[in-house]
This record gives sequence, structure tokens and C-alpha cells, in this order.
Amino acid sequence: MAAQMDAANAASEADHERGPLGLIAAGGRLPLDVAKAARSGGRRVFVLAVKGHADPAIEAFPHAWVGIGQIGRCLSLLRANSVKDVVLIGGIQKPHLLSIRFDWAVLGIVPRLLRTWRGGDDHLLSGVLDYLEDKGFNPVGAHQVAPELVAPLGLLTPSRGPNTGEKADIAFGRKCLTALSPFDVGQALVVHDRRVLAIEAAEGTDRMLKRIAGLRKAKALALKGIAGVLVKTPKAGQDLRADMPAIGPDTVEHAKTAGLAGIAVEAGRVLMADPQAVVAAAEKAGLFLVGVAAEPEEGGR
Amino acid sequence: MAAQMDAANAASEADHERGPLGLIAAGGRLPLDVAKAARSGGRRVFVLAVKGHADPAIEAFPHAWVGIGQIGRCLSLLRANSVKDVVLIGGIQKPHLLSIRFDWAVLGIVPRLLRTWRGGDDHLLSGVLDYLEDKGFNPVGAHQVAPELVAPLGLLTPSRGPNTGEKADIAFGRKCLTALSPFDVGQALVVHDRRVLAIEAAEGTDRMLKRIAGLRKAKALALKGIAGVLVKTPKAGQDLRADMPAIGPDTVEHAKTAGLAGIAVEAGRVLMADPQAVVAAAEKAGLFLVGVAAEPEEGGR
Repeated sequence: MAAQMDAANAASEADHERGPLGLIAAGGRLPLDVAKAARSGGRRVFVLAVKGHADPAIEAFPHAWVGIGQIGRCLSLLRANSVKDVVLIGGIQKPHLLSIRFDWAVLGIVPRLLRTWRGGDDHLLSGVLDYLEDKGFNPVGAHQVAPELVAPLGLLTPSRGPNTGEKADIAFGRKCLTALSPFDVGQALVVHDRRVLAIEAAEGTDRMLKRIAGLRKAKALALKGIAGVLVKTPKAGQDLRADMPAIGPDTVEHAKTAGLAGIAVEAGRVLMADPQAVVAAAEKAGLFLVGVAAEPEEGGR
Repeated sequence: MAAQMDAANAASEADHERGPLGLIAAGGRLPLDVAKAARSGGRRVFVLAVKGHADPAIEAFPHAWVGIGQIGRCLSLLRANSVKDVVLIGGIQKPHLLSIRFDWAVLGIVPRLLRTWRGGDDHLLSGVLDYLEDKGFNPVGAHQVAPELVAPLGLLTPSRGPNTGEKADIAFGRKCLTALSPFDVGQALVVHDRRVLAIEAAEGTDRMLKRIAGLRKAKALALKGIAGVLVKTPKAGQDLRADMPAIGPDTVEHAKTAGLAGIAVEAGRVLMADPQAVVAAAEKAGLFLVGVAAEPEEGGR
């Protein structure tokens, strides 16, 4: 116990020496949640708010607004604010390459850009973090600076857990997502009775859940009553520093509208925006919410 | 050449001895196309039209209407009409088990039903065909009775073929679909620049293409101009007698609305409803349409 306290103090001192946490904030409410969590953990925060994506509420923290192509400006701002550790958080829509207004620093990244632009989002965001690392920064994951936002292991909704069939569906769904991982697609799916009803690709989780709701309304799915599980996990080998999957109170709302029975996320590797609100929403909706153990993986980050 | 003619005559005589082709017709226009193709190949046809699914135009052929649960009636009708070869064709929405009105013959299939009901559609339809086989019928694939409806190998649109990047996307998309096959899901996807934009599950190909159109309209996909390929193949090991994937003129329309560059189907294993109209629609829309070689598979049907 004492050793733990010492370690915590040492970490805090180290944090102070390292300067503030640099938070590159994209869309959604997660950047704000992560910033608050980091600050309540005693860390100063300096935010680079991405224009067109970040919630203006992030202005409650020391910040600067940056355009997506302002690479040189980002580096200068981070350095001017003595930032070492950088976290990249929030939803970002991959822009069309030709629509980005780059600044001078793009000259140094052309080969890297060409290498990482093609393919899924993960690949691209990982490239951004590698670039920051090359420039002397230390990219960290949101789960490292805001551990209280990480989905814990076990049942989170005391009043309702997955039954035997639903547990089998969760295992089936996870295997299916794992099979998709090499293609950098599929962070979530909906499964019922070993039948995969929807797989998420570019549309995102909320739109996928709306699709299930629409199919059910149109009687295009033969489901009666409450049925189906949303399974959400990172891809196998996903760089968690780049873009952790996340759920929030909205996800629960959409799952309820889709008539689902529950939600399973991978413990330790999925973020929950406002965890108390997520659990409360699930309890209110009568959905189960469970954190399932990460499958053993070779040297995940 | 003479040997081929003899073989054709022998086949035709054999057909005559075997009685008419039994065509279990579900939704869409394919049942009618297959019936016409079989008849123009000199085969008599007897149709079991599935109530609530089959197009009434199928009544142009000798037929009887049957409910989904009328198993005994189906067997009696097929036998009374001297049917041996049976083909199952057209879209069918998996009904809720409790909503089906079974007849007496269900008593003989309860264990089988319980075994095959869970899981994807393929699994279920395969079970239906195995049952027919047990009852002395000979389930055949639509590709066998209507070979002129099967997508041929090679480029079908003379004015436009896939470029190097699109060819790579087709190969990438096929690998992704193959990875999904063990989960009985994913007959189609849309891919651009090695990024999977949509994967088809329970919604079907048309709704998936409408989704892409919607995402593009909402500027939620960073695609400019004509971009993306629809890749459609059977699942690896799919029982082609049960449910061959199919495209039709509508598919081309939806692909065009989604702003895609083209369509790739697996040659020999995907049906085209009204092939001339499909090709003409693709040419008119400026889309490429290509039949790609089936990957070597262990003893496919």
C-alpha cells in the first residue's frame, strides 16, 4: 500500500516535470471527459482543438484551435506549452486529402502521408502518432490518462445480465470482429441467435443501431420483442493510443431503440463517456451492460 | 462437336424422364427469370409459389401457392406433379418461428428444425435442401438449370474496366468477405482505396448501397466523385443450391446512386437477373461490371 502511494507520488512528480498533457481534441464529448479526468487526476492540460470537430465547451481548458492540415502550427504550439505527452481523442471524419489546407510542415511528411493515407482510419491515426513520436513527443492513450473512463471487467448492470444464449452470441460476435481485424474494419456488430444482423463499417455505431431499429420497424428482421446484443471491441492489434472505441449514454439510447437486449464491450479497451450516466441509462432501459475479458493477444499496447 | 450434341440430346431425354423441374419460388424477379430460362432450355416447370413472397407473374407457369409452413403439402404437390429435381430460388425473409403455420409434416422435422433454425440464412436453406434430398428429391442450383443467368468471367462492360487501384480494392474486398464466411454473413461489401465502407449483413445489398448514398449525401464519407466498388460473392463453401447471390438492373441503379465506380461479382457463382439489362444499365451508368475468377476451393458444389 505504501509502495503504491509512493509510486503515485512519484508519477505525479514526473507528470509535473513532463509539463501539461497535450490533448488533441476532435469531435464528440469524449475529449472533454478525458480532459476533466486528467485534470481531476492532478494533471495540467493543454488542448489543441480541431476546427470543425471539437466541442467549443473544450475552451474551458487552456487551448488553441487548429486546422487539420496545420501540422507545423500544432508542433509549435505543443512545444511552446512544454507538452511532452500527447493524447489524440474524439471522433474525426477522414477528410478528402485535396480538401486539407496544409501548412509548411507538410513538406516533411509527404512520404509518410502517402504511405498511411490509404486504408482504414486506424492506420492513418497510428501514422499521426508515429509522426509525433518522431518529433520527440510521447503519444499516450486516453485509457492511460483517464483510467476511470475505461470499461471495467464484469457486469455493470446489477438488475440484468446476459443469459446463456446471449453469452454465446457475445462470443460469436467477438470471433467475427476478430476475423475482420486484419481489414481494419468492424469495431462493432449486432448479433442474435448466432446470426450477425449488422456490421459496422464507415457508418459508425450509432448509425448501425439506427439501421437495426429501421429494419425492425419495416419488419425486415424476424425478431420478436427484446433481442440482439451490441458487441463492441477494438480491432485485434489496434493501436489504443490512436482511437479507442467508445460508448456513451447515446449508444445506450440507440441500442434501446433498436430493441436490443444488451451491450458487451471489451473490458480495459473500450472507453465509456460519463460511465455513471452510461450505466444509469442501461439500467433504466432494461439493457444489460457487461465488460468481457480481453482475449490474450501478442504484445498489445 | 457430335459428342457434345449427343450429350445434349441425352441430357434432354433424361430431363424428360425426370419430369418437370420443381421451382420453389420466393421473392424478387429471379424465380421468373429462372423459370423462363429453364423452359427455353426445353424443360417443363412446375412452380411452388411461396405466399407473401413470390411475384404473381409466376402464375404464367403451372403452379400452386404454398405457405411457408406447409411442408406436407409441398411434398405432396411435388410428387403429384412427378417432380424429381427441385430448385429453390428468390429472396425470403426468415420468419419468426412462432409465426409459421405448420402442417402435419412438421412432426417429422422438429429435430432438424431446431438444429438448423439458429444461425444465418444459408444454414437454414441448406437444411431445407437436405430435407428434400432425404425425401427422395434432387435439389439443384439455379446456376445448373439456368446457366445463361450466371455471371461469366471477364469484363462485361466494354467501355470501362477496373483500373489498377480498383483491381486491388476488389482483391482486398474478396479477402475480407472470405474472412467473414465462417460466420455465415457478408455476401457483399463496398470498398474504396483499401478502406471497407460498408459490409452487408441482414439488410441486403440494396439497403447497403442506399446507406453509402446516404452517407455520401450527408458528407459523412470523404469521397469525391465516382469512387468505390461493390464486391459480391458467395460465402466460401456456400451451398449454391440454397441461395446464390444475385444482382439485377436495380443493383446497378443503386450502385450508381451510391456514386460507385463499378461492380465485381464472382464468375460462375453469382446470378444476374436479366443479364442483358444488367449490362446495359451498367454501360449507361458508366459503371464497370466484371466477373472475377472464383478462388480455388475444396470441392465446392
